[in-house]
Amino acid sequence: MTCEIVAVGTELLLGQIVDTNSAYLSARLAEIGVSLYRRATVGDNRERLVSTLSEAWSRADVVVTIGGLGPTDDDLTREAIAQVLGETLILDEEQAEHIRRFFEERGREATPRQLRQAMRPPSAKPIPNPNGTAPGLHAEKAGKMLFALPGPPNEFIPMVQNYLLPTLGAFTGGRVIRSRVLRLCGIGESDAEAQLHDLIASTNPTLAPLAKLGEVHFRITARAETPTDADQMIAEMEQKVRERLEYYIFGIDETTLEQAVVERLVQARQTVAVAESCTGGLLGNRITDVPGSSEVFVGGVIAYSNAIKQAELGVPAEVLATVGAVSEETARAMAEGVRQRFGSDWGIGITGIAGPGGATLEKPVGLVYVAISDARTTVVRRQQFIGDRKTVKWRSAQYALWLLYRGVRDGGCDSLLRS
Amino acid sequence: MTCEIVAVGTELLLGQIVDTNSAYLSARLAEIGVSLYRRATVGDNRERLVSTLSEAWSRADVVVTIGGLGPTDDDLTREAIAQVLGETLILDEEQAEHIRRFFEERGREATPRQLRQAMRPPSAKPIPNPNGTAPGLHAEKAGKMLFALPGPPNEFIPMVQNYLLPTLGAFTGGRVIRSRVLRLCGIGESDAEAQLHDLIASTNPTLAPLAKLGEVHFRITARAETPTDADQMIAEMEQKVRERLEYYIFGIDETTLEQAVVERLVQARQTVAVAESCTGGLLGNRITDVPGSSEVFVGGVIAYSNAIKQAELGVPAEVLATVGAVSEETARAMAEGVRQRFGSDWGIGITGIAGPGGATLEKPVGLVYVAISDARTTVVRRQQFIGDRKTVKWRSAQYALWLLYRGVRDGGCDSLLRS
Repeated sequence: MTCEIVAVGTELLLGQIVDTNSAYLSARLAEIGVSLYRRATVGDNRERLVSTLSEAWSRADVVVTIGGLGPTDDDLTREAIAQVLGETLILDEEQAEHIRRFFEERGREATPRQLRQAMRPPSAKPIPNPNGTAPGLHAEKAGKMLFALPGPPNEFIPMVQNYLLPTLGAFTGGRVIRSRVLRLCGIGESDAEAQLHDLIASTNPTLAPLAKLGEVHFRITARAETPTDADQMIAEMEQKVRERLEYYIFGIDETTLEQAVVERLVQARQTVAVAESCTGGLLGNRITDVPGSSEVFVGGVIAYSNAIKQAELGVPAEVLATVGAVSEETARAMAEGVRQRFGSDWGIGITGIAGPGGATLEKPVGLVYVAISDARTTVVRRQQFIGDRKTVKWRSAQYALWLLYRGVRDGGCDSLLRS
Repeated sequence: MTCEIVAVGTELLLGQIVDTNSAYLSARLAEIGVSLYRRATVGDNRERLVSTLSEAWSRADVVVTIGGLGPTDDDLTREAIAQVLGETLILDEEQAEHIRRFFEERGREATPRQLRQAMRPPSAKPIPNPNGTAPGLHAEKAGKMLFALPGPPNEFIPMVQNYLLPTLGAFTGGRVIRSRVLRLCGIGESDAEAQLHDLIASTNPTLAPLAKLGEVHFRITARAETPTDADQMIAEMEQKVRERLEYYIFGIDETTLEQAVVERLVQARQTVAVAESCTGGLLGNRITDVPGSSEVFVGGVIAYSNAIKQAELGVPAEVLATVGAVSEETARAMAEGVRQRFGSDWGIGITGIAGPGGATLEKPVGLVYVAISDARTTVVRRQQFIGDRKTVKWRSAQYALWLLYRGVRDGGCDSLLRS
């Protein structure tokens, strides 16, 4: 069963709003096994709306329009649908009554303009809208289905959940679709793909890569006759991926790296404190985005100036004077200093040049030292990141989280020396 | 000049990501007077990509594709464009060299897969991509233009700003469209709109409100025959808005509140240090997102645990034991403590309950105390924010920045007592 979505509204084409409705519906359709082939966005222009709708109607089994069902002259979806179906709009008396009552209850009278919303092509039935005045429309013709849904998300989402998905689900039948995302860090998209090339060629379950900033995600999607079968297929594929890339997998589905770090620390009953220079608080911010992080996160020092690195973290004046603030020695002293001072099990130190200013010949923008320290060992890594200021900050924090994740998982800072 | 956008990526059709790139580009095209007629979204499927692209190419003066330029087998935009233009891909030696150097600098070798990104149709020229490995493409044929831009926003947005808009702007010619955004904080959208109601009714220039989290923006857009005329119309409208709401305006266009704060501090030759509890580093992170912030930002303490509030900021044990960590007294001691300890002109203290856990009957989720301190005065404000954990953190940092902005602008912490 193939589907196309047509989103309607000049406000979309002017970029005044982001089309979250289409993304929402896309995800729901994927879950019930409907193949979405195309999405189109068109303005409140009758000619272009009709041509876009006709094309979609000629190609797909199911067409869903979003928006353009309101009371104003700009709302042309009903008219366009009637034209594509070759019909003439009629007034639906029951819906007209619903609109009249809606306004009566608010001490007003429904205008003729409001009643336009009760118009429908004769072959289409109205979809009740308990959250607004404009009903949706559901038409079937020549073995195809067309649904028109209202644009406001508080009307759209309930209509998708309560009407569209159950209606389409009846046709996709026993066919269950399930998916699971594996999240990786510490490996590039091409490297990971090269190692999974044969699995990526699989058609059911599928394995699809998705590159994120500093992470690679692989989505496993299985189609089967029963949920148990689908889950089994996913488990088998996951096992194959884990046999090759277990080391890099930190979480599944929506798990962020910071969540994975906090979970590992909670399990190990260990705490962390951070000393941040170029990241300016980003690492602490990401860790504290995780509910319950107060159990394992003690706090930290944002040591932006050299004076603070010296006074609050005990970085030796001599180190700052000789090798400078962006150096292996400074990162080491920061990590060890904050760990001792804050009494935590782990200490992180980050110092680097986020740019755009501050670079020298020996120390280019993006040069970052990340240090991680526990009671036995301190490890410092030099990294050269690319990107603008925020990207360098983000990659630095990401790298620190990845070191911390592995350090906790693999039983101590020592383990990082072996990798 | 009419335009269509084709967004490419199965992850879009699966609803895994929301297409913010298309919305961003739509808004920018509207500003320079390019009429966007349609947007299409299509997956990583060659046949559908080619047919969608062909349709757009047959209708519009300008077609812009977004995404599908990466190194993997899924990235098919280059091939599809070549097919639509009736050409065969060749290797661009200069871009190949760029990719080889990119990997060399990172101590690795570019794989053949990576070098695919340097392929282009002979009639297209590459658009340099300083933020990634995949160059964009720019083709002109039969009086029409086609641009292919990469999907990652940190590569896409700079290429729109630095290449696409200047290139198209040269063609939109005589009819000039200019706009300017005024950014406000400390006033709600309805209040601001009520005070500007007559101006919002204006048709040229237009004045359009846009609510953001913790801010309200007003976009002034003027159409005129010359840039001078448009600028004059904007200046007059801006003047009228400023006469009514000057107090709340902290910046124009892309100026963030943290940028405005840093600029004010630089002008005043003053410094700030932060003591963060519930925001966990977010305030420091936002300030250090501003290039050049090291001139005015000394650093701070992320005091997540009570022990750290006491040891690193001098919050009295008695205060923590009696009124607790989320209190006016603690916020005050944090702001004063970090100011004295870090030797800065200004000190900020934030303590509150970001949720979802940690609430009590007297102290609900979203309760936050923000303190601001200079050499003469300390002011503490109690706020009750709504939203999830990240939203409460964000609103807390936003509120602290707004207090700091006004304190510096209006000549000292004293000024906040009068407002």
